[in-house]
Amino acid sequence: MLGNFTYHNPTKLYFGKDAVDSLKGELKNYGDNVLLVYGGGSIKKNGIYDRISAILKECGKNVAEVAGVMPNPTSDKLKEGVKIAKDHKTDFILAVGGGSVCDYSKAVSVSVHCDDDPWDKYFVSFEEPSCEIVPVGCVLTMAGTGSEMNGGSVITNHEAKLKIGHVFGDEVMPKFSILDPVYTMTLPKYQMCAGIYDIMNHICEQYFSGEDDNTSDHISEGLMRSLIVSSRAAVKDPQDYEARSNIMWTATWALNTLISRGKTTDWMVHMLGQAVGAYTDATHGMTLAAVSLPYYRYIMPYGLKKFARFAVNVWGVSAQGKSDEQLAREGLDAMESWMKEMGLVMNISELGANADMIEGIADATLILSGGYKQLDRSEVVDILKASL
Amino acid sequence: MLGNFTYHNPTKLYFGKDAVDSLKGELKNYGDNVLLVYGGGSIKKNGIYDRISAILKECGKNVAEVAGVMPNPTSDKLKEGVKIAKDHKTDFILAVGGGSVCDYSKAVSVSVHCDDDPWDKYFVSFEEPSCEIVPVGCVLTMAGTGSEMNGGSVITNHEAKLKIGHVFGDEVMPKFSILDPVYTMTLPKYQMCAGIYDIMNHICEQYFSGEDDNTSDHISEGLMRSLIVSSRAAVKDPQDYEARSNIMWTATWALNTLISRGKTTDWMVHMLGQAVGAYTDATHGMTLAAVSLPYYRYIMPYGLKKFARFAVNVWGVSAQGKSDEQLAREGLDAMESWMKEMGLVMNISELGANADMIEGIADATLILSGGYKQLDRSEVVDILKASL
Repeated sequence: MLGNFTYHNPTKLYFGKDAVDSLKGELKNYGDNVLLVYGGGSIKKNGIYDRISAILKECGKNVAEVAGVMPNPTSDKLKEGVKIAKDHKTDFILAVGGGSVCDYSKAVSVSVHCDDDPWDKYFVSFEEPSCEIVPVGCVLTMAGTGSEMNGGSVITNHEAKLKIGHVFGDEVMPKFSILDPVYTMTLPKYQMCAGIYDIMNHICEQYFSGEDDNTSDHISEGLMRSLIVSSRAAVKDPQDYEARSNIMWTATWALNTLISRGKTTDWMVHMLGQAVGAYTDATHGMTLAAVSLPYYRYIMPYGLKKFARFAVNVWGVSAQGKSDEQLAREGLDAMESWMKEMGLVMNISELGANADMIEGIADATLILSGGYKQLDRSEVVDILKASL
Repeated sequence: MLGNFTYHNPTKLYFGKDAVDSLKGELKNYGDNVLLVYGGGSIKKNGIYDRISAILKECGKNVAEVAGVMPNPTSDKLKEGVKIAKDHKTDFILAVGGGSVCDYSKAVSVSVHCDDDPWDKYFVSFEEPSCEIVPVGCVLTMAGTGSEMNGGSVITNHEAKLKIGHVFGDEVMPKFSILDPVYTMTLPKYQMCAGIYDIMNHICEQYFSGEDDNTSDHISEGLMRSLIVSSRAAVKDPQDYEARSNIMWTATWALNTLISRGKTTDWMVHMLGQAVGAYTDATHGMTLAAVSLPYYRYIMPYGLKKFARFAVNVWGVSAQGKSDEQLAREGLDAMESWMKEMGLVMNISELGANADMIEGIADATLILSGGYKQLDRSEVVDILKASL
């Protein structure tokens, strides 16, 4: 565990079938004016909206709504939500949806009592909130982002062609999250698989950093092995509750700060993917899938020992008589096979990107320094070209 | 993830060299009357007492002390501490020591404002606290019990010859814990290794239950693999900071409720070991080591698939051409070799138990039902005889 760190994650999780029944008890802890936030309306078709509305009514809450939060929530939509929240004198925000709805609700929570423009303050200047923060609770309907137990929030500004994430502190984390795996079962397979790759990549982003052999590396390997088993079962039968529940639980622990303790962390796949997302508005997990292999194959020589270990400990590649380089290659080949099994998008062309966009996407890519290779802009361009 | 569950662990952790510097900031959140709790006085020799006293003084705290908390804290000592805490009008309890001191401090915290006898209420009748709970913070000096991030408390009653643990809810968990691996380095090797086996057994108690292949099993395997690597390094060189820090972090996550989510959990090795402890006052981790192999070899046929998986995924036993039974046996043999490498006590005779005590120890053994085999009393006797 190199370096010093703190760990504090106060989010309370209610997990399992009908976990939404816990909502009633939790709502007692907050004021009467509730802002209900949701996405494109699927919760109105599958009964979740009705069930939650009944609970809110039973608890005597005064409810305003922000509907139509899009998969990549925009800075314009954020402004709209903040206005509704202010007018409603919101005491509590209830996010019902996937990572986008949770991310968006956290962005609203730090903006209701803030006089500055939230996009400028939090997503351009990366300032921390200095105002009162409205408490948030989540009812999760999609597994992937981990937003249900962290302080992260990603907002897209189409005008600036930027998609930027801010990881807020524990005071912005949801007070509670309700995780019912059954709620994820109505999701289209494309979205399920995009979520699965988002989880895998969250773990990789933290795992592929640092030279030590610390506990976080071992926990990460366990989470990846679990995900490989449960994702294969879920792709075969999306109604497999056991598989869907393991995927949901793995998603939460893949990005709630646990496995980054003692690590420098990389996050370049997310930076590349988010830049692609800002240009194409494609599904987040698919943008990550489309750039991952060109990126990892490029940085592999700089973290050879870790990539060799990844092959053996995560993918079960036999080490006998093989060099680290051979093992490392076979590990990424095994990941590629699994990605194809999952039906993931393997290049950015399929997401609507083209050669003319490469320079713009490279401009929108924030270059970080925690991984095995510090990229320069020309390397970003090369990786994006290899992803076409 | 079979079954429904909640997860909530609000303890804030400060990890790393000089993490005790965080104490000053934390103490501001609590009242002036601090009860300082510690053990046999080693903290006076290694400078920890002086450093913490200086911080308490700087913060203007009014300090009373409970010194001499023994490795197996007694119900008599608990009464003594409760009286001191009451007289001092204690606002905050600061535990400085290992698991015993943390366990003891939590027992005091739920007893200061309680009119009943705490032994009867919490450790015989297993009631939950209905009174005000005094907040507890920990400065950990030994890795093993996980008490720094859970609600557990084990108290021994010598008159009744009982050693009983109560796992309290999240309101009893420490508000914060300070984990500086350097603080564990002055510990004698015997104590370090007892702590290492306590960690391993905490994981085994949760892992060896249930037939499903859930995320908790995979995280557990990661934690065990990490512990095997770091324990071997620490036994070779107890001053290896990297190894000691990984052991400390693994200990916390081995018993903070994470890896029990979705599991029935076993805990029979602890029940057996605690009964041995009540009769011999031996070091906790060594009592577990002394009964483990006879217990696991006895229940192995009832959980064969899991023991076979344990061999392959934890100990790296090659599965090729082997039956589950052969694999399971080889896994436990690998664990036995590792235990001998650690210099653990492999039988209860060495801890002071003898054949005449077997019936009494069996009487003191609480028989639980979450593992692969529901034992009856005669089986408990057989396992204890095999442990002699």
